[in-house]
Parts: sequence; C-alpha cells; structure tokens
Amino acid sequence: MPNNKQTNVSVFQYDSKELKEMEGLSPEECLSLTKNKRKVTWVTLEGISESGLIQKFASSFDLHPLVTEDISHTRQRPKVEDYDEYLYIVVRMPFYNNKSDNINTEQISFILGRNYVLTFQEKRIGIFDPVRERLRKGKGRARRSGPDFLTYALLDLVVDHFFVILEKLGEKIGSMEEQVLKDPSPKMLQKIRNLKREMLVLRKSVWPLRELLLSMERESSSKNPLVKKETAVYLRDVYDHTIQVIDTTETFRDMASGMLDIYLSSLSNRMNEIMKVLTVIGTIFIPLTFITGLYGMNFRFMPELEHPLGYPAVLSFMALAIIIMLYDFKRKYWM
Amino acid sequence: MPNNKQTNVSVFQYDSKELKEMEGLSPEECLSLTKNKRKVTWVTLEGISESGLIQKFASSFDLHPLVTEDISHTRQRPKVEDYDEYLYIVVRMPFYNNKSDNINTEQISFILGRNYVLTFQEKRIGIFDPVRERLRKGKGRARRSGPDFLTYALLDLVVDHFFVILEKLGEKIGSMEEQVLKDPSPKMLQKIRNLKREMLVLRKSVWPLRELLLSMERESSSKNPLVKKETAVYLRDVYDHTIQVIDTTETFRDMASGMLDIYLSSLSNRMNEIMKVLTVIGTIFIPLTFITGLYGMNFRFMPELEHPLGYPAVLSFMALAIIIMLYDFKRKYWM
Amino acid sequence: MPNNKQTNVSVFQYDSKELKEMEGLSPEECLSLTKNKRKVTWVTLEGISESGLIQKFASSFDLHPLVTEDISHTRQRPKVEDYDEYLYIVVRMPFYNNKSDNINTEQISFILGRNYVLTFQEKRIGIFDPVRERLRKGKGRARRSGPDFLTYALLDLVVDHFFVILEKLGEKIGSMEEQVLKDPSPKMLQKIRNLKREMLVLRKSVWPLRELLLSMERESSSKNPLVKKETAVYLRDVYDHTIQVIDTTETFRDMASGMLDIYLSSLSNRMNEIMKVLTVIGTIFIPLTFITGLYGMNFRFMPELEHPLGYPAVLSFMALAIIIMLYDFKRKYWM
Amino acid sequence: MPNNKQTNVSVFQYDSKELKEMEGLSPEECLSLTKNKRKVTWVTLEGISESGLIQKFASSFDLHPLVTEDISHTRQRPKVEDYDEYLYIVVRMPFYNNKSDNINTEQISFILGRNYVLTFQEKRIGIFDPVRERLRKGKGRARRSGPDFLTYALLDLVVDHFFVILEKLGEKIGSMEEQVLKDPSPKMLQKIRNLKREMLVLRKSVWPLRELLLSMERESSSKNPLVKKETAVYLRDVYDHTIQVIDTTETFRDMASGMLDIYLSSLSNRMNEIMKVLTVIGTIFIPLTFITGLYGMNFRFMPELEHPLGYPAVLSFMALAIIIMLYDFKRKYWM
Amino acid sequence: MPNNKQTNVSVFQYDSKELKEMEGLSPEECLSLTKNKRKVTWVTLEGISESGLIQKFASSFDLHPLVTEDISHTRQRPKVEDYDEYLYIVVRMPFYNNKSDNINTEQISFILGRNYVLTFQEKRIGIFDPVRERLRKGKGRARRSGPDFLTYALLDLVVDHFFVILEKLGEKIGSMEEQVLKDPSPKMLQKIRNLKREMLVLRKSVWPLRELLLSMERESSSKNPLVKKETAVYLRDVYDHTIQVIDTTETFRDMASGMLDIYLSSLSNRMNEIMKVLTVIGTIFIPLTFITGLYGMNFRFMPELEHPLGYPAVLSFMALAIIIMLYDFKRKYWM
Repeated sequence: MPNNKQTNVSVFQYDSKELKEMEGLSPEECLSLTKNKRKVTWVTLEGISESGLIQKFASSFDLHPLVTEDISHTRQRPKVEDYDEYLYIVVRMPFYNNKSDNINTEQISFILGRNYVLTFQEKRIGIFDPVRERLRKGKGRARRSGPDFLTYALLDLVVDHFFVILEKLGEKIGSMEEQVLKDPSPKMLQKIRNLKREMLVLRKSVWPLRELLLSMERESSSKNPLVKKETAVYLRDVYDHTIQVIDTTETFRDMASGMLDIYLSSLSNRMNEIMKVLTVIGTIFIPLTFITGLYGMNFRFMPELEHPLGYPAVLSFMALAIIIMLYDFKRKYWM
Repeated sequence: MPNNKQTNVSVFQYDSKELKEMEGLSPEECLSLTKNKRKVTWVTLEGISESGLIQKFASSFDLHPLVTEDISHTRQRPKVEDYDEYLYIVVRMPFYNNKSDNINTEQISFILGRNYVLTFQEKRIGIFDPVRERLRKGKGRARRSGPDFLTYALLDLVVDHFFVILEKLGEKIGSMEEQVLKDPSPKMLQKIRNLKREMLVLRKSVWPLRELLLSMERESSSKNPLVKKETAVYLRDVYDHTIQVIDTTETFRDMASGMLDIYLSSLSNRMNEIMKVLTVIGTIFIPLTFITGLYGMNFRFMPELEHPLGYPAVLSFMALAIIIMLYDFKRKYWM
Repeated sequence: MPNNKQTNVSVFQYDSKELKEMEGLSPEECLSLTKNKRKVTWVTLEGISESGLIQKFASSFDLHPLVTEDISHTRQRPKVEDYDEYLYIVVRMPFYNNKSDNINTEQISFILGRNYVLTFQEKRIGIFDPVRERLRKGKGRARRSGPDFLTYALLDLVVDHFFVILEKLGEKIGSMEEQVLKDPSPKMLQKIRNLKREMLVLRKSVWPLRELLLSMERESSSKNPLVKKETAVYLRDVYDHTIQVIDTTETFRDMASGMLDIYLSSLSNRMNEIMKVLTVIGTIFIPLTFITGLYGMNFRFMPELEHPLGYPAVLSFMALAIIIMLYDFKRKYWM
Repeated sequence: MPNNKQTNVSVFQYDSKELKEMEGLSPEECLSLTKNKRKVTWVTLEGISESGLIQKFASSFDLHPLVTEDISHTRQRPKVEDYDEYLYIVVRMPFYNNKSDNINTEQISFILGRNYVLTFQEKRIGIFDPVRERLRKGKGRARRSGPDFLTYALLDLVVDHFFVILEKLGEKIGSMEEQVLKDPSPKMLQKIRNLKREMLVLRKSVWPLRELLLSMERESSSKNPLVKKETAVYLRDVYDHTIQVIDTTETFRDMASGMLDIYLSSLSNRMNEIMKVLTVIGTIFIPLTFITGLYGMNFRFMPELEHPLGYPAVLSFMALAIIIMLYDFKRKYWM
Repeated sequence: MPNNKQTNVSVFQYDSKELKEMEGLSPEECLSLTKNKRKVTWVTLEGISESGLIQKFASSFDLHPLVTEDISHTRQRPKVEDYDEYLYIVVRMPFYNNKSDNINTEQISFILGRNYVLTFQEKRIGIFDPVRERLRKGKGRARRSGPDFLTYALLDLVVDHFFVILEKLGEKIGSMEEQVLKDPSPKMLQKIRNLKREMLVLRKSVWPLRELLLSMERESSSKNPLVKKETAVYLRDVYDHTIQVIDTTETFRDMASGMLDIYLSSLSNRMNEIMKVLTVIGTIFIPLTFITGLYGMNFRFMPELEHPLGYPAVLSFMALAIIIMLYDFKRKYWM
C-alpha cells in the first residue's frame, strides 16, 4: 500500500459500456493504455513529491519542459495553455487548515489530451472521489462523454469546494462582527488582519479561474478538437459558479475592510463611555472638594465657621449642586 | 384550492382576439397547449418546492439538465442562456421583509420558447398580477405581441419592484443620517452595518440584470427568432431603468459608506464636548483647590492666616481668577 | 396670456432669409408647419404638466409610446435614442435653488426630426432665450443651418449652465474649507454631507451627457441624415466642454471627500489643544495640592510644622516646581 | 519694442540651408511667407490679450470659428483636432508661481499646417527658447525636418517642463513628510490641502496630454500628410515621457493622500503622549492626596494622629507607593 | 583588469557546437563578429558611465539617436520598441540596498538584433552569471536557440530577481505587522511610510514589464523575424511570472496600506487603556477625597466629628465604596 510520501498512481479507463480501475502503473503502461482511442483514460498522480516519477510521465507523454516545471513548482497561478496535442490546465484549490485555523491552497494540474486526462495533485485528500463514484456507478453523462467532460466535472468539484470554504468564512465573519461591536479588544485586530489575509489568498486563487474557464469556452467555440462544442454549456455553468464565488469573495473583502472601521468606531464609543464617567465624576466632585477646601482653611477670621448653621448650609448647598448637575447630565445623555 | 406549500400551476393562453385562463394543468396538458402555434401560452409555477413537478415540466418541455438544476437551486446569479429552442432567463427580485426589517431576494426563472413562456417563482406573492390584469383587459400591445413581449413586460415588473425597494431604502438612509448627526449611539453602528449588507444584496441582484438585458437586446439584433426586432426598443427601455437602479444603488452605497465617517466625526465631536466640560471644570477648580489647601496647612508661622483681611482677600482673588478664566474660555469657544 | 401651470407652446419657423414667431398653436397646426420642408420649425413646450397636450403632440408627430412616456416621467437618465424618423434626446439641466440652497435638476427632452425640433421643458425658466435672440438677429450659422445645428446650440446652452453651477459650487467649497480649518463645528458635518449629495446629483446628470454626445457624433459619422456631417465638429466641442464639466465635478467630489478628513483632523487638533490645557493644569497643581494636603494633616508630631521657616520653605519649593514644569512644557511645545 | 501687454509676433522661416528671423509681422505678411512651400514657417504669438490680432490671424489662415474661440478662451482641456488643412493642438504648461508658492498652468495652442506652425502663448516666458537656439545653430534634425518635427520639439519642451515642476514638488513633499512626522501643527493641514490641490491641477494638465500624443501618433500611422511617418517614433518618445510624468503624478497624489493619514496618526501619537503624562501624574497623586485628606480630617477620636510614629509611617507608605507606581509605569512604557 | 568606473565589454559568441568568450573588444570588433550570421553574438556592457563608448557602439550598430539617448539616461520606464532591424528593450531590475535598507532599481537595456544581443547595465552586479554558466556548459535549449531565446533567458533572470526582493519584503512586512500590534511607536510611522515608498518603486518597475512581455509575444505571433514563434511559449512563461510578481506586489501594497489603519487602531487601543487607568483612579479617589475634605472643614458645630464612632464609620463607608466601584469596573471590563 502506498504511504503518504510516495506518489500514488491510479488509473480509470472507461467508455459507456465498461470501466477498469488500476493502481500503481508505470508511465509506460499508462501511455500504452491511451493507445486505445475509443476509451477515456484518466491517470491521477497524488502526492507529487517524487519528482522523478513526474519527469518520467512528462517524457512518456511528451510534455513541454515548461509544463513539467510548472507541475513540479506548486506555486503556479491558475491558467490554461494550449500545446496543440494537449491542454495544460493548472488551478489552485483552497482547503481549510483546522490546525492553524487558516486557508491554504493546493495546486492541481490537468493534462487534457485527445482521449486521456492526467491529473497531478500536491497531496492526497480524495477531492476527486465524488467523480470516481459517479464513474463507477456508470450513471449520467460522464461515462458517455470524452475527457473534456471529465475535466469539466473535476473543475466543477474544485469550484464547489470554494463554496464550502466561503460558507465557513461567512460564519467566521458573522461571529467576528458581533464580537467587534460588543468587545473591541486588541486581539480582534489580529483576527481581522488574518481574515483579510485569507481573503487575499482566496482571491488570488479564484480570479484567474474565471479567465481560465473563459479561455476553455473560447477553445471549444474555436473548434479546438480537445474541447467539444457540447461541453461549452457545462463550462459556462462552472464559469457562472466561479463568478458567484468571486462576487461572494469581494463582498467578504468589503466586509472584512469595513470591520476595521467598525472596530475603530467601537473603540471610539468605548472611549466616549470612559470619558463620560470621568467627566461626570470630575465635574461633580472637583468643585465640591474646592468648597470643602475653602472651609478647611485656617484663617483666624472666617465668620461662617463660627455660625451654628454654617455646616448644614454648606451640606445643603452641596446636595443641591449634585442634584442640579445630575439632572444636567441626564439631559445631555451622559448617564 | 392550492395551499401555500403546493406548487400552483396557472396558464394563460391568448392571441389578440381571445384569452383563456386555466389552473392546475399537468405538464403534458401544458405542452399540448403549446402545439397551437398561433397563440401565446404562458405557464406560471408559483412555489417551486415540489421538485418532482419541476422535473416533469422540464422533461415535458425537453429542458437541458443544467437548466432544470438551476431552476430548483434558488441561489442563481441573474443570467440569460440561449439553448436554441428556448432562452433560459433567471433574475432575482428583491422584496422587503417587514418582520426582520431587511431585504431578501427571490429567484424567478423564465423559459422563453417560440410561442410560450414558462415562469418559475420561489414563492407566491402575486408579483405578476399587473401583467395578468392587462392581458385580461386585452388592451395595449401585450395581447397583440408574442412571448418575447410578455417576457419584457414581466422583466419590467421586476425592475419596477427595485424602485419600490430603493424608495424605502432612501427614506431609511435619510432618517439614519439625521440620527447619526444627532445621536451617534453604538446601536447606530449595527444599523449602518445592516444597511451596508442590504446594499450588497441589492447590488448583487441588479448588476447582472444589466448584462442580462444587454444580452437579450443583442439576441434580438442578431436575428434570434426568439426575440423579435420590435421588442428590442422595449428591452432598451428596461435596460435604461436598470441603469437608473444601479446608479441609485451606487449612490446609496456611497451614502452608507459615508455614514460611518459621519458617525466617527459625530463621536469625535461628542468627545470634544465632553472633554471641554472636564477641562473647564478642572482648569477652574484644581488651581483654586490648591490655594485652599495652601491655607489649610498647619504651619505654626503663617502670617496671612492671622491677618483679619486674609480670608476676604483670598476669596476676592479666587473670584477674580474664576472671572478671568471664564472670559478666556468664552474667547476660545469652549463654553 | 399663459399662466405658470399651463403648458406654453411657442413656435419658431425660419430659414436663412426669414423668421416667424408664433404662440399657442395646436399640435395639428405645428405639424402642418413642418410640411414646409425648406424651413426649420422649432416647437417649444414649457411646463409639461398638461399631459393631455403632450399626448396630442405625441400622436400628431407619431412618437413611439415609450418616448411619450419618457417625456412625461421627468426622472429620465440622459440618453439619445434613434427612432429612424427622429432622434429622441433627453438631458437633465441643473439649476440652483436659492431658497433651499441646493441643486435640483430639470428634465429637457428633444425630438430632432428632419426639419423640425420639439423641446419639452419641465418648467419655464427661459433657458433657451440666448438662442432665440441669436435666431431673431439672424446672425451666425444658426439661421443658415438645419435642426441638428439648433439642437447643438440648445445642448451647448445646457452644458454652459453646468459651468455656472460649478462656479457657484467652487466658491462654496472654498469658503467651507476655510471654515472647516478654522472652526470644525458639528454644523459643518451637515453642510459637508449636503455638499456631497449635490455633487452626486450633478454627477448623475453630467456623466450620461458624455455618452449622449458621443452617440450623436457617431450618428453623424454613420451618415444618419438627422445629424449632418458638418455638425459633428460642433458636437465635438460640446463634448469637450462636457469632459471639462466632468473633470471639475470629479475634482470637487475629491475635495468634498477630503473635507471630511480635514474636518476630523481639525477636530483632533482641537482635542489636542483642550487636552494640553487640562494636562498642564493637572500636572502643575495636582502634585502641589498633594503637598498642601501633606502639611494639612493633623498628626501631633510633625516637626516641619513647628519650624519658623517651614512655611516659606514649602512656598519656595512650590514656586520652583512651577517654574521647572512651565519650562518643561514650553520645551514640549505644550504652551 | 513690444511691451508685456502687447502681443508679440515673431517668425522663423527655415530649411536645412538657411534661416530667417523676423519680428512684428502682420497676419498677411505671415500668410504670404507660407506661400514658400519648401520652407517651414513658424509664427509665434506671445501674449494673446490682443484678441483683435488673433482674429486677424485666424481669418488670414482661414481657421474654423471654434478654433479661434478656443485659442482665445484660455481654459481649454488639452486636445488635438484634425481640420484637414491643419491640426489644432492645445496643451497646458504648468509653471511654478514663486510668489503665491503654487502651480499655475498656461495654455499653449498650436496650428500645425502643411508647411507652417502657428503657436499662441498666454504670456511670454521664453519657454521655446531652447528650440530657437537649436534652429539658429542649424544642428540636428530640426532644420532638416518639417513642421511636424518642429511641433514635436515644442511639445517635448512642454513635457520636459513638467519634470522640472515634479522635481520641485518632490522636494516639497519630502520636507512636508518630515515635518508632519515631527510636528503635526494645524498649519500643516492647510499645506497638505494646498499640495493636494496642486496635484489636481497637474493631473488635469497631463492626463489629456497622453491621449493627445496617442492621437497624433495615430494620425501619422493613418497617413495623415500633416504628421509624417518618421515623426511617429519621436512622438512615441514624448508619449513615454508623458507616461512617466503621469506615473510620478499619481505617486505624488498617493503620497499627498497618505500624508493626511500620517498627520492624523502623528496627532494621535501626540495625544497619547499628553494623556500618558496626565495619567501618570493623576494616578500617583490623586490617591496620595486622598490619604493626606484622610489625616486632615478633624475627628476627635483618630488614634493614628496621636501616635508619634504616625507621620513617618504615612510618609514612608507614600514613598513606597510612588516607587511601586513608577516601576509599574516603566513596565507599561508610559515613561 | 577593468575597474569599477570603467565600462566593461564582454562578448559571448556561440552556436550549438562551440562557444567563444572575449573581453574588452572595441565596438568595431563586436560589429565584425556579428557578420557571422550562423552564430549568436552576445555583447554585454557593464557600467555605462563611459558615455563615449556607448556612443561608439550605437553608431557602429547604427542605433536610432533616441535609443542611444534612452540607454544613457538611466531613468527609463520599461518598454519595448521595434526599429525593424532590432528590438530595443529596456527594463528596471530592483535590488536591495543593504546600507540604506531600501530598494533601488537599475536600468538594463537590450538590443535584440537578428543574430546578436547587446545588453547595457548601469552597474556591475553579475546578474547574468547564471545564463553565462548555462551557455558555457552547453546544456539546454540556450545554445541551440537564437538571440531571442537568449533575451528570454535574461528577462527571466530579471523577473526571478523580483521574487527574491518580494520574499525579503514579505518578511519585513510580517515583522512590522507584529510590531505595530505590539508597540505602535512613532518610529513605526516612518517605517510604514518607507515601506509604502518601496512598494511604489517596485510597482513602477513591474507593471510596465507586463505590457513589455505582452508586446514581445505579439511580435512573435505577428511573424516579426526577430522573435521566433517557438520563443512565444517561453515569453508567456515569463509573463505568467510577472503577473505573479504584480499580484504579490498589489497584495503587499494592500498590506502596507492596511498597516496604517492597524497602527491607528493600536494607538486608539492604547489610549483606551491609558484613559481607563485614569478614569478608574479618578472615579475611586476624587469622591473619597471630597469626603475627607468634608470632615477637614473647620466649622465649629459639626456633630459627626465629636462622635467616637465617626472616624471608623467614615473609614468603613469609604472601604465599602471602593469595593463597590472595583466590582463595577470589573463588570465593565475596565480592569
């Protein structure tokens, strides 16, 4: 059984009638399978750390050196390139890293030939299992259609995964906004910064996807034999979903940016609250303390001090002042 | 009688001479009605929860599987798609939810065929009643024109509904701006945030509408038989209204964004007011209290204390200081 | 004589040799005048509240129902539409409402036919008088040219009016900026908000004007008989003026937006000033008051109190402290 | 000799072999010079206040009335217009007004004919002297080339002048940024506002220049006889310089906008410093003053007061409290 | 041996079979080498201070005067220009100046002829050594391909260098963000300002690079013999890298801009912390001091003072007040 560091090669070969599944084939075996022009051959390489194997596949399938390089260097921008004999497609799929609580992206490369598809994944996370299931069940258009439809189905899965991520982010943003309004702690600043960064990661993965799908649609309408005309409408559908992902991403970006403004406003609100308390206390007691100071002076001749009603009079005056000031603060909504 | 959870099917069939209204027909009955090529058949499905019925209609009218899926999944982005035999149009109509005091959108799908229109609505809110009324009265172009004109009339209703929503929002923004200037309470922050969110919802519904109408106009000028040339000028008219909706939406967005700035400025104003009070009180009484403290000290040899005019002199000095300071504050506009 | 609520119909008919002025003609009379193909007939309707009259004109001149509707509903976005027999042009002219001290816009519609021009104005404010004067004097190109040149001349007047408004706004902005820097009172916030709103009104009127003029130029170069080739250079000129209006509007918008920032900065400056005063007072007198408190304590055994130089020593120390602190504040630019 | 208010007419006529300089010619004399088709005639009008003279030149050279108007009204937006017989080019040259310490712009108009160039300048500031020098020396391409090359050389001078202005602005921005960081005084606000305004002036002059040069290049490639193909590469060069001016202008605008943010941040920093001082003083002395107040009370039964160690104990406690608090403030970086 | 101020001329001449390296050749010798049409001649001039040598090369290779000027004036914007016999390419390479801790850019010019490449570098920093190594080893496509491939390889090195710079900047931004959150000192403001400036420098170098590469690709597809069709795919690859550089630069710009907001928020947080302390202290001790003042008054008739439980009662009341207030502050999260 393959371990996580090894590159796992799995092959599906099918037409509308039958489907064969194979594991661990060599590049040459894969190539010979594609000689059968009436069947679709789908070769998946999961875990592309073994660059030697990639090299062998590349030379077997006669890939352009730049393509081979791009497959191995997993920091490509999503794009599609037409090399006449095949299309080279590279996309980035986001996934949520639960440990570090942030979003990473993984590169997935497709080689779409006349009757075969090669897919190269950075790691193994079974992202393509739903398509495999559908192929095995033999239902739907998938089994009846060519490798371009298979590529569509796989791209569709990738775009669907964006929605999963966006939903998670949506919840996160919602709860963060609540928190910012309630308790604008310094920790929130860090969280907002991280959120913004995640939006940037997502954005960089999904914007080029839009162009990519437009290009593929254009290929199909310019009679490129690699992408059939019937597939165009399906590509249009994935395109529409991508636009929706972009829309939502931009909305979230707006919300993340707005959050800092709300944060600052919340802070200002807090400051106002704090200052009101200080001002109320100060305004009431500083003048009164002055009065007590006045009658605490040690002048020999201070007639008020001798008067038996002096103390009650001062107390009454102070009580009155407090009442008036409290009333005034109520009026100004400071309390 | 149909209840709210059931899908309600209502059919209009008309030409310039007569109009028939039917209810609760089966998909097959609807299809057979469309065999009459000289009349326009309009089938409305309100409440699309019964997905089985949708499926049946889809297969009767031979709709593409992607279309059927889009009709049922009510989170589509507005778009128009040409499937040769019919146009698939999907729009989002905003409506004001009085309970939660915010804006929701509902998906409405149109299938525009050669001599029929199918409309699929999420819920039943009688939005199309004005068009029904006009058809019944037999006045205007509607009865004399084809299904493309009917589609125009329905789209026009949808865009008109945006204006209703915008008017409501305009009033809300106006009253919020007043309030922000008068009383920038923390609750306003939440309101501003909600307003911004509503603007985003509206924006996502109306921007694609613009492209949609442009596409339809293009169809009509590229001689697509589904959209006649005479209808183009009407579509242009709805397009102009859509541009107006977009303009107003963007203006409102600007105003909603500006409101946070005004909120912050109002808060700062408030803070200034509060601090002025504290400063005035502190500046007057802190130095005076110091003086009272001075003569409250218990040194044995303090000649001033013995002097019979000591107390009145200090009192006079303090009164003078207060007067000078008040004058100074007036000059600085602090009071 | 027509009163303000009535629609006033005035007609000019001219060629290079003679000019006739008429008032209060019926739609049919106007139509029959246009039978004279060698003369330009210009019909002005001022005050379009009498929608019956509009209807009659519309049916006399065989206008499209959508055009008639747009003329009556005076909230159109500026646009030009080609109906083969005539161009329908609608613009918005800003005018300054002295009473409410803000900017409103009025809709003006043009029907540019082969040898006639109809203009529909919301109210009567004599905006077209300069062109009338020029026609009467018989000078310049106007009398020698066709209805397209007349339309140009009228549009030119509309754009010129924007400059008048902009000049007024420029002065207003200048004086507001002065005030914001000098005295950032809460009232200014409201003024800034109103200014921003006026800029939005202006913007919505002038941006579409640009497209409108481009379209008309395009008509003339695409050999539309309604707009002659010789008029193109004049339209280009109005277009250039419109660009200048847009440039200035955008500059003003920038300045209006910047004003809020300056407002906030001014407020912060003020706050700093206020806080400096409080801090200077507090920093000087709070510690000194503590010292007076110290020697105001009633402990039996406090040797300093008995010493004949105690009081002068404390006074001297306090004076010294005050001097040192004042010096320090000077150094920190707090005073 | 011409004084500053008069319009000065100076003429250069040259081919690769000889050059003639003339002064104060009449429009008719200038026109007759242009009859010599093998030589380039360059007529400069400096100081265009004498509008009568402009009119005469315009009618001699048969200029379009709109061109004559644009030359006299010196608030044109830079543009180029093709009138078949000549190109009308208008640009705005910035110059630094040392008195008012701000940037103004002056309008320069060019009429580029088949074998002549007319230039109209608002004032006389000898801006074209370097080109005159080069022509006199007879070196370089200038003397061998036609009027289009001369126009290029003059436009190049105008664009070069932008760099001079930008360098001055760059220094100003640099010193302002220093000052804002060091001492964010209210005066700086005004300076920042003025800077922003200057950037707007510059921007409005240079952006249209870009389009202007692109248009001229297009003319040359569309075989307009007024702009020869060989000149295109030179125009491209000025175009590149214009792009550089635009880039720098935008960078400066960014920096000017950023300066307000830095200003606000500096103010906040200051406020923090001020508040720290008040807080340190208040936190230390307010509680201690309370303690002195405590033992300043006149209750008859206060055993501490009688104790011989009461006073030293309180003093020691206070000293300890001060030390602890100072240590705490150090830890919080408040001192 | 060449010193740093001298211009160093080094020549590579190669085909797939052999490679010759020469140093210090004269312009004429270089030119004569290019007579060998079957070999690629690559001439590098490092350190272009000796403008006489540049002039000689320019006239030997018959360069356009504008090109010669652009090579010497090292402040060009990246661009590509087609002079039929050769392409003139100019780029800006960023490098990190460790001394001043900021980013500078250096101009590199390429003359791409039919069988030769000239490169002009401002200084000597051995940037092209990796390509030289590859040529010497004779491996890869480089030796088998023409001068366009060589140019690609050199441009690729330039773009790769951007990544090095970006990585350094990324680390810097990361550590700055940490610091801003932890300790928003005034010094950070200056650092943020410098960072923004560096981003502007980078941006101005990389954006035009994108257009440059697009232009070159277009040249190759429009059958320009200087750029072969096979090279297009490689240029596309550099183009993709440039897009990645641009993306990252824009992301960094966003982050640098956001940092100022975070700075301000951090400052506000700090201010809140400071004000909370002052308010807590003030709110507790100012009222208590008032009470001590009350019983410090010297009225003759104050019954409380005589009561033996007066002092303990006041002390207890004060302790209770302190406890209640502390509890209240805890509840408000002020402590």
